[in-house]
Amino acid sequence: MQVTEQLARFLATHRPEDVPERVRHEAKRSLVNFFATALGGCRNEAMEILVAALADCFGPPHATVIGRSERTDALTATFLNSVSANVLDFDDTHLRTVIHPTAPVAPGLFALAERRSISGAALLHAFVLGVEVECRVGYALSPGHYRRGWHITATCGVLGAAAAAGKLLRLDSGRMAWALGAAATQSSGLIENLGSMSKSVGVGNSARNGLAAALYAERGLSGPERPLEGPRGLAAVMGEGEDLASVIDDLGDSWELMQNAYKPYPNGVVLHPVVDACLELRPQVGDVARIERVMVKGHPLLRERADRPNVTTGREAQVSLQHSVAVAFLYGAAGVKEYSDACVNDPAVLALRSKVSAEDDASIPADAAVVSLRTTSGDLLSAHIAHARGSIARPLSDRELETKFRDLAAYGAPGVDSGRLIDSIWTLDKTDNSPAVMKIAAQA
Amino acid sequence: MQVTEQLARFLATHRPEDVPERVRHEAKRSLVNFFATALGGCRNEAMEILVAALADCFGPPHATVIGRSERTDALTATFLNSVSANVLDFDDTHLRTVIHPTAPVAPGLFALAERRSISGAALLHAFVLGVEVECRVGYALSPGHYRRGWHITATCGVLGAAAAAGKLLRLDSGRMAWALGAAATQSSGLIENLGSMSKSVGVGNSARNGLAAALYAERGLSGPERPLEGPRGLAAVMGEGEDLASVIDDLGDSWELMQNAYKPYPNGVVLHPVVDACLELRPQVGDVARIERVMVKGHPLLRERADRPNVTTGREAQVSLQHSVAVAFLYGAAGVKEYSDACVNDPAVLALRSKVSAEDDASIPADAAVVSLRTTSGDLLSAHIAHARGSIARPLSDRELETKFRDLAAYGAPGVDSGRLIDSIWTLDKTDNSPAVMKIAAQA
Repeated sequence: MQVTEQLARFLATHRPEDVPERVRHEAKRSLVNFFATALGGCRNEAMEILVAALADCFGPPHATVIGRSERTDALTATFLNSVSANVLDFDDTHLRTVIHPTAPVAPGLFALAERRSISGAALLHAFVLGVEVECRVGYALSPGHYRRGWHITATCGVLGAAAAAGKLLRLDSGRMAWALGAAATQSSGLIENLGSMSKSVGVGNSARNGLAAALYAERGLSGPERPLEGPRGLAAVMGEGEDLASVIDDLGDSWELMQNAYKPYPNGVVLHPVVDACLELRPQVGDVARIERVMVKGHPLLRERADRPNVTTGREAQVSLQHSVAVAFLYGAAGVKEYSDACVNDPAVLALRSKVSAEDDASIPADAAVVSLRTTSGDLLSAHIAHARGSIARPLSDRELETKFRDLAAYGAPGVDSGRLIDSIWTLDKTDNSPAVMKIAAQA
Repeated sequence: MQVTEQLARFLATHRPEDVPERVRHEAKRSLVNFFATALGGCRNEAMEILVAALADCFGPPHATVIGRSERTDALTATFLNSVSANVLDFDDTHLRTVIHPTAPVAPGLFALAERRSISGAALLHAFVLGVEVECRVGYALSPGHYRRGWHITATCGVLGAAAAAGKLLRLDSGRMAWALGAAATQSSGLIENLGSMSKSVGVGNSARNGLAAALYAERGLSGPERPLEGPRGLAAVMGEGEDLASVIDDLGDSWELMQNAYKPYPNGVVLHPVVDACLELRPQVGDVARIERVMVKGHPLLRERADRPNVTTGREAQVSLQHSVAVAFLYGAAGVKEYSDACVNDPAVLALRSKVSAEDDASIPADAAVVSLRTTSGDLLSAHIAHARGSIARPLSDRELETKFRDLAAYGAPGVDSGRLIDSIWTLDKTDNSPAVMKIAAQA
């Protein structure tokens, strides 16, 4: 089975008009979400550190760092934009693999677009193909690869980034295979690093190194014939015995982007229906001082992942049921601000957190929850969420994505014109001037 | 067992005066060999492609590309100098792990030296520590890690590069652990890519990304507490069940640099005694037209690895017994030129190659060989090599290393003043002006 060869030929010969309209639209939704989270994350502490550390090595100002005033070379901008898009854990999720598909793939394409003449339609097409590659390879290696401890977003993202950039560079199938080979030998990223700032290094590298792999292949840097399926190739070394045949099944007929989901809140997915329920109850409660007790019922996974009454950092709070309930009632929101260290240690939040308890109900699906509340005056209120917002069964609408975008932009990059940037993404495939998007995304 | 913590504390607190003189001298020998192979490789096809592909992203001209006129940022120069040092397969070998230790570790140090005020003694000390780290981690993971398909020079080299650069940046033990963490999550490189130009991507990245990891940690990018030994850390994910305890045994008492070896010829190690024997016989033969037949006797590994009578590329010829014998007799040399594609297809070489045969003798050690020769006039000549030049039992002398240096410099960078560059390395620990080395190493 020549997986690399068949995949490379598919990528090199696939035409934009063969992408169904619904997939193209989902690609734009992914990009709206990408710019939203990049704007939200562009001033994060990890970003500030990486910008400061790399500034001495910045290349020519060819490419925009989203939401910021710096300009740098295409590879460095690609690294930084991937970091900012992923750093808040608020980016998209391909649910079958838990890959966050856009942060590795999109940045290299926009950086190339600022340097070469590339139409929006070509960019969108390359993006669709890149996501397809990373998710298919990730799925073929699942669940053993992630379970062993590989950070699948980074390890498979680099292949998607190389495929996408290679498509934009119009590599023939031979050079596309070389690009995949140069990507495979750069595949890295450990789960151990999640929870520390160095998570960002793996994700940023996946984007940067995928673009580099395509640029190397464009110039003729040869690779092995079978980097993915060879005896010492990616699957043999980083998999647990899988053969990758599924990577090429139905290529061009099914599209992984249709399994992509966008978080409404920057916290663990299991918490989404809980927050939904609290926000539904909130108008009926009025003053939070009236809350005597909050009881949450959910799938056993909920308590397993998120029963954390005592948290002190924003990062821990992202997987705290108690904190999420408290901020939803107190502020009517569970956004980036509500998961800051300051908010987590706010006495009002602490007080409300202590009134929250949870119990398991195995009959409740993982994307559902029931929140009940007793007031000091003895009233009982209850809300049942059958499917969380942002789940595949109840995806965020385009308008909800736009609201997420505006909130994150206001948080991280208030100088950016959100309306114009959103419009430029929805109309990306109608423009010959794809770099215009990045001009709007730069902090004035 | 807190491996990372103990290793980081050792690195942060170790003092230059605690490196024994013989280790310091071996470090200089490794650096002489490093500059030799970098000068020899600096115009290699893979290098030309990588320079061309990266030129558009070159940062400020802070750092030298060895043997060339380009100057670029520290990270890019580190990548390129690592590539040129390794690309010919002529760099040093730590025999217990088959790691090529210097190409990942040295380039970042010299790039830093060009940017910050660093004494030669500090640079040499950091280099010794970096080699120690990569070889110890590599040995702890051996033989499972390499056998699975990991290119151990790249995967472990990034840790050595981070440790060495972290030492030069005077990281405290906490930040040193962060540097090791940022390095671990960048560890990559597949054996599948050896034999293609993309081998260089893995090796170059190990140097670049190790330096980047140290620069990130210097600015405060946090990492996990146990990146090496944690449940989803390097050993768990990229090892086969090893516990890494040996990484910290006898730290500071035994030195891996003393196991480092330097090749006299850019071919497979099993071929070294064969070439030695041919060069010893050559003066007795005179005109090669007199050769009727050459018979080689060696350890069974010799035929297993190198019995290749019909080769067409330089890369194949590097592991061809027949080709190596032919060029040794024809040209009295087995250097980079003798393993070029042109030489491999030279009719005179082909003719002599066909007269060479080999047989196994299990009683002969792997670093020994017997070459016998029958002339057209019926004379029988024979040479027995007990230990190959460049083996641990018969290391290249300092003068032989200098000769290798001059040959490689003349081949790849004839404009560089070899004598001055060699002197500057032997006296490196006596100078406060370590960047002077790189000034001499730049192509005028």
